Amino acid sequence: MSSKRCAACKQLRRRCPSDCIFLPYFPPNNPQRFSFVHRIYGASNVGKLLQQVQEHQRADVADSLYYEAYCRIKSPIYGCVGIISILHQEIDRLERELAKVQAEISLVKGQTQIEGHLAQGQQVELSSSSFDLSIITTPWFY
Amino acid sequence: MSSKRCAACKQLRRRCPSDCIFLPYFPPNNPQRFSFVHRIYGASNVGKLLQQVQEHQRADVADSLYYEAYCRIKSPIYGCVGIISILHQEIDRLERELAKVQAEISLVKGQTQIEGHLAQGQQVELSSSSFDLSIITTPWFY
Repeated sequence: MSSKRCAACKQLRRRCPSDCIFLPYFPPNNPQRFSFVHRIYGASNVGKLLQQVQEHQRADVADSLYYEAYCRIKSPIYGCVGIISILHQEIDRLERELAKVQAEISLVKGQTQIEGHLAQGQQVELSSSSFDLSIITTPWFY
Repeated sequence: MSSKRCAACKQLRRRCPSDCIFLPYFPPNNPQRFSFVHRIYGASNVGKLLQQVQEHQRADVADSLYYEAYCRIKSPIYGCVGIISILHQEIDRLERELAKVQAEISLVKGQTQIEGHLAQGQQVELSSSSFDLSIITTPWFY
């Protein structure tokens, strides 16, 4: 047995070949990472899931399997589906909040337009007054 | 072998006892449901995950395991972690959109206040004009 065995081969008490499928993704200094995926999926299934994708995609497979296993251990009923549910609730809340604020902005813009029209009306009135003023202030005796 | 075997016992070609852990959650009319979790976790691990929670929680465990297995089969690299990532991006987008609209509403409200103050100033001016008018229109020769 090599001293450079990966976490998987160490826990499974077996020789770690140089082309071990677990070696790059389950280093010996992080035994919990393998322990979690082993507990939820079993080493054989993790190996199969890594094998079925291309080499450059395996780190992402290992990371996402570890994340799902971690969630399942912390939350045995819902696993990471509980997180998906919480995120959907958060999206619903934000969409409602956004709709509320958008309705508010439409209302404020509408009010501003009405006030603008009223102000224009007032200006017209003011102009009329000025006009009247010019007539009234024209001395009648000129 | 009973004809009422669950999907798990049917696929594993074994007798289905009346207290079978899979029976209530993997009915024979939905073989894909068991097939998916078996492919990702293995029947033994699914059984263990069901056993470790209380009976009333097992339907949720079976549903969430099926959902995760379904996601992993459809998306072998990221599984349902890919969905979590997409939902986080959607939350970020909505939060940015909300911040933008909230900034816009603050701006519109600020403008409305300024216009309100200006309109008040105009009214004061208008009152002054009216006042002036009363003076001016008072015939100087009275």
